[in-house]
Amino acid sequence: MNFASDNTAGIAPEIMAALSRANEGFTLGYSNDVWTRRAEQRIADVFKRDVAMFLVTTGTACNSLAIAHVAPPWGAVLCHEDAHIATDECGAPEFFGNGIKLVGLPGEDGKIAPGVLKAALEKPQWGAPHHVVPSVLSLSQATEAGTIYQPREIRELADLAHAHGMAVHMDGARLGNALARMNAPADEATWKAGVDVLSFGATKGGAMGAEAIVFFDRERSSGMDRRRKRGGHLLSKHRFIAAQMDAYLADDLWLRLARHANAMADRLSDKLAAVGMPPVWPVEANEVFALIPRAACDRLKAKGAAFYERMAENLPKSAIVKPDSILVRLVTSFATTPAEVDEFVTTARA
Amino acid sequence: MNFASDNTAGIAPEIMAALSRANEGFTLGYSNDVWTRRAEQRIADVFKRDVAMFLVTTGTACNSLAIAHVAPPWGAVLCHEDAHIATDECGAPEFFGNGIKLVGLPGEDGKIAPGVLKAALEKPQWGAPHHVVPSVLSLSQATEAGTIYQPREIRELADLAHAHGMAVHMDGARLGNALARMNAPADEATWKAGVDVLSFGATKGGAMGAEAIVFFDRERSSGMDRRRKRGGHLLSKHRFIAAQMDAYLADDLWLRLARHANAMADRLSDKLAAVGMPPVWPVEANEVFALIPRAACDRLKAKGAAFYERMAENLPKSAIVKPDSILVRLVTSFATTPAEVDEFVTTARA
Amino acid sequence: MNFASDNTAGIAPEIMAALSRANEGFTLGYSNDVWTRRAEQRIADVFKRDVAMFLVTTGTACNSLAIAHVAPPWGAVLCHEDAHIATDECGAPEFFGNGIKLVGLPGEDGKIAPGVLKAALEKPQWGAPHHVVPSVLSLSQATEAGTIYQPREIRELADLAHAHGMAVHMDGARLGNALARMNAPADEATWKAGVDVLSFGATKGGAMGAEAIVFFDRERSSGMDRRRKRGGHLLSKHRFIAAQMDAYLADDLWLRLARHANAMADRLSDKLAAVGMPPVWPVEANEVFALIPRAACDRLKAKGAAFYERMAENLPKSAIVKPDSILVRLVTSFATTPAEVDEFVTTARA
Amino acid sequence: MNFASDNTAGIAPEIMAALSRANEGFTLGYSNDVWTRRAEQRIADVFKRDVAMFLVTTGTACNSLAIAHVAPPWGAVLCHEDAHIATDECGAPEFFGNGIKLVGLPGEDGKIAPGVLKAALEKPQWGAPHHVVPSVLSLSQATEAGTIYQPREIRELADLAHAHGMAVHMDGARLGNALARMNAPADEATWKAGVDVLSFGATKGGAMGAEAIVFFDRERSSGMDRRRKRGGHLLSKHRFIAAQMDAYLADDLWLRLARHANAMADRLSDKLAAVGMPPVWPVEANEVFALIPRAACDRLKAKGAAFYERMAENLPKSAIVKPDSILVRLVTSFATTPAEVDEFVTTARA
Repeated sequence: MNFASDNTAGIAPEIMAALSRANEGFTLGYSNDVWTRRAEQRIADVFKRDVAMFLVTTGTACNSLAIAHVAPPWGAVLCHEDAHIATDECGAPEFFGNGIKLVGLPGEDGKIAPGVLKAALEKPQWGAPHHVVPSVLSLSQATEAGTIYQPREIRELADLAHAHGMAVHMDGARLGNALARMNAPADEATWKAGVDVLSFGATKGGAMGAEAIVFFDRERSSGMDRRRKRGGHLLSKHRFIAAQMDAYLADDLWLRLARHANAMADRLSDKLAAVGMPPVWPVEANEVFALIPRAACDRLKAKGAAFYERMAENLPKSAIVKPDSILVRLVTSFATTPAEVDEFVTTARA
Repeated sequence: MNFASDNTAGIAPEIMAALSRANEGFTLGYSNDVWTRRAEQRIADVFKRDVAMFLVTTGTACNSLAIAHVAPPWGAVLCHEDAHIATDECGAPEFFGNGIKLVGLPGEDGKIAPGVLKAALEKPQWGAPHHVVPSVLSLSQATEAGTIYQPREIRELADLAHAHGMAVHMDGARLGNALARMNAPADEATWKAGVDVLSFGATKGGAMGAEAIVFFDRERSSGMDRRRKRGGHLLSKHRFIAAQMDAYLADDLWLRLARHANAMADRLSDKLAAVGMPPVWPVEANEVFALIPRAACDRLKAKGAAFYERMAENLPKSAIVKPDSILVRLVTSFATTPAEVDEFVTTARA
Repeated sequence: MNFASDNTAGIAPEIMAALSRANEGFTLGYSNDVWTRRAEQRIADVFKRDVAMFLVTTGTACNSLAIAHVAPPWGAVLCHEDAHIATDECGAPEFFGNGIKLVGLPGEDGKIAPGVLKAALEKPQWGAPHHVVPSVLSLSQATEAGTIYQPREIRELADLAHAHGMAVHMDGARLGNALARMNAPADEATWKAGVDVLSFGATKGGAMGAEAIVFFDRERSSGMDRRRKRGGHLLSKHRFIAAQMDAYLADDLWLRLARHANAMADRLSDKLAAVGMPPVWPVEANEVFALIPRAACDRLKAKGAAFYERMAENLPKSAIVKPDSILVRLVTSFATTPAEVDEFVTTARA
Repeated sequence: MNFASDNTAGIAPEIMAALSRANEGFTLGYSNDVWTRRAEQRIADVFKRDVAMFLVTTGTACNSLAIAHVAPPWGAVLCHEDAHIATDECGAPEFFGNGIKLVGLPGEDGKIAPGVLKAALEKPQWGAPHHVVPSVLSLSQATEAGTIYQPREIRELADLAHAHGMAVHMDGARLGNALARMNAPADEATWKAGVDVLSFGATKGGAMGAEAIVFFDRERSSGMDRRRKRGGHLLSKHRFIAAQMDAYLADDLWLRLARHANAMADRLSDKLAAVGMPPVWPVEANEVFALIPRAACDRLKAKGAAFYERMAENLPKSAIVKPDSILVRLVTSFATTPAEVDEFVTTARA
């Protein structure tokens, strides 16, 4: 019963097998290898576009390098106030961006509403050199609340950002879950909707550690090879990260894994609702947030269930908070089993 | 016949197997797992000391994070002018160190002589605030010339550095090769000789991508967990990097792999010498530098041999440079076979 | 009628005279001069303590260098959400701090309430390495709302900060105005109340460009000479910045200048209140915020009055906002005349 | 007898007077003032070109901001190994440039020879992402050896740099001395010779603290207003730095002051040569380097003469070094008197 995060799961068997297959013979390091070429082609196929791709091992690196590449040091990055880049990366974007500023915007269901973005961009300022410049809009897909942006929502936000000269970044650590849920083609939900640079995550989806910085406009990526290197993020035995991405994308494995995780979240959500613990936010990816009685929490932990409690701030008005209820985040993964889900709910209810 | 680098080899079978074994069940991410505890214990056992250890996936990250942690931004890092950190990491130490300055010292056989270090440290300066402060001495073990520092040499250099208030860093990307060669215990050749912080590499030795920042004084590592995180170098599925280090150190695998690589370098060196292409520098680890006729180079490349040419600068006086000779670097690894070595020499001679 | 800022005034005559006097003969540069020694002594006398002092020419440099010196790169600086460092320095603290994060706290009257600070510091987090560390509490004295912290308020906030291992920084760009107003000794309102490092401003008070970073604990300043130098903030002809600070502090000039500015703010506030435009926040230093009809604004501008409009957000409940009223900030200085004040009010009312 | 530096002199009377004149009435801060407009016009007139100009108070800030603006973080700045930016600014260029690397080139008489630059640029490298990119050529005019580059020399070096995609920066802390000496128009010796961005110093020439970053191509300066601000280098009472530059350039004051300093250097050099202490390098600006007997040094210091000793490394072959001779640097300024020069020589000879 591990719902602490989708990164508590291991490696999908298909990806593990790919690592073994890649472990044959010698090949040049630092991305000069056929596995990297294959992964590049896969990404191009998925997004139906010639892109520039740079593989790294962590989501934090992926986001920070991507953002630093499209923002000047005096840039501001507008994101949801609960965005991973703002709250969970220990200042990595600020470090890689040489002191950029992250500006958190409020928003229901973990999402930025166009009106909120518009208001933030139209704030009057008192004179040019004193203020940072809104340079990047960063959207998390899926969001930290487990919700997703529809392509038309992305489009509306991206149009606003572009009109202010900003780049649009998407933190797609769980992009597979979002795409699987809305059954949208990857291109429609990214560059065709206005995304300029994407952090495309495979780790949470089932890889060991593989994330791709994807520039939909190749020219924008000029210099990124050196930025990655001096960030310590260019692997010498690069074939092994490329092999992960290659396997993740082959035969739609990534979408199948995501669909399973999503289905487990649905099952969990439905069953919890049935026992009076409905999800706080819409379950649109592989995360369920629910208010659970303290006693249920204790029972679950006693049985070895792993999950994180969250502060019950900014809950939607529809949420029914009882005095002893705890907000918990439950994340499913490719490895979650129906039995685990069922045991969790049974234990919670008992 | 791949002698381009020891990172052109894949993963040692024992380490690959460990990755498979680690891929069972769920575990918390970000180093809160039993594999990490095991790797920590292995490192402590190897160095016979309670140390603080931080795993990352690249040597560049390992060096840069380690150095940045013991140098103020106005610090100078003294190293050999050919050191990897100075020439091959695209300014990573300067980036992580917030603008530290690397000062390259000349030195025969890729090594810094105590007299050279002493002279550098005793240079008069014109006034305090205008000049960077010598803060770190970084030694490469083995060196970029394939030579090694004996413990007493390290001791002498470290004493000089410590007397000037500097920390001593060792870039041990090939520490296994060096230790295997001199048959010295790991503690004798590191902290007992004055090393304060070590980049302990496993990647070149046979791992997929695993390097440990090792602080021999735990207190000095305070804050490093956050420095690593904001550098994007804390893996979420951390067990898989820990499992590599665990397997690498178990049952002296690392030393066995290193001994094999060293033996292949000896074989290569001996056979090349026998056909009139003696090594330029002493072969003390797993690298052979030799002057090879242009025609031999061409033949080798035509046969698919991979290796890098180097500029024939700073050669020792003993080296006999002919008009058409090329300086080549040949690196052996755990995966190099005697047959490859022999074919290389046969082709070179033909 | 220039109320745009206290930096629209020129240089106080006593300070201008001091510059002329300092312009005699040769002297060593970079702070090795008698004027600097004198300024240091003045600061020590004012604060009744042996301190370490570093002069720079701008408030932004003063704040940023001070904060960067007491915060690690992964530190968070807690300050009021309207603090100058957070809104008007174009990310300078983030730049000098190598990517530190500024966390703005809400608060009435421009001030941080102890309860708000306490709540911020007690927020649960999910695990150490992922989050920045609260490292500095920065208080603006006077605040951006023209209010001031009493020594006991500083004490309470500082105690909270120190209990969490944080340093306390004071942005004293208008410290003279605050001290003159509350008639408190400089020591009582700074280090005796828990301030660790102070940005002591003279520029707004009447200097050309002179601000002192003051460390109340000398040891904490170690390395600051180099940090200042590499920030480009060590003047070669340092005597001229020292002469300003020396003259500013001699014979309580700074307090006399501040009292005048404060008195002009009082006069302005009183007279505006008398014509139905009372101050929005208590006038405790040299700034008056008032809601003025659009027509009055237009009349004033037509007559050449200079002042800034502000967004009417976060006004206190007591403020009576009419549909056409504009929130204006009016800053007085040592050079403001009663006649200017009177003309402003007459014009506003007309 | 102060020959320690040209910054040991005070402020030229004309500039001091300008400061007094500027101290009238109120004016908006942060460069929105008529003095700044005038200074901009003066610079445009001097260089016969519409330029973008940014004033700061120190040469270190001027150089570092300029260089950081034209180099990516992974850029290398090629300069003479004795350049001020490389040896005397405590790593400021590295700090402002987010970890750029300064590469010092050797060269006689303090100058970079085209052949040396060419060789450095043509060094083969082993693969793109591992190495910093030569991005800026920085030339000091006058050099640290007191010599100057002729326009055709600058042209030749700039052509090489431009051919490699680099920008050309000139550290013109003593540009006035260089131009006065060669009697060349400012445009011919800067942008017409290939300089892209100039640090134009007035401080050493007679100002209190005023240096201009000059972009000869306006577009290249985009964003510099914010870079300067977040460096803490935008003065609030900006009129006073602008007034200095305005007065410095008015009526060719700067050239008159430089000619005087140069003449004093010539007088010093000639007289020293006459007593057997000829200059080590050609005296082409306002610096004289000479080998002086230890006894003479002692006598001079006893009489209160101020000057710095230098390490006698890299002397030209023509220099006659006696066992007891000391290499001294003697810098003249607008304030140096013939009597001082004569007393120095008399004392040295006695």
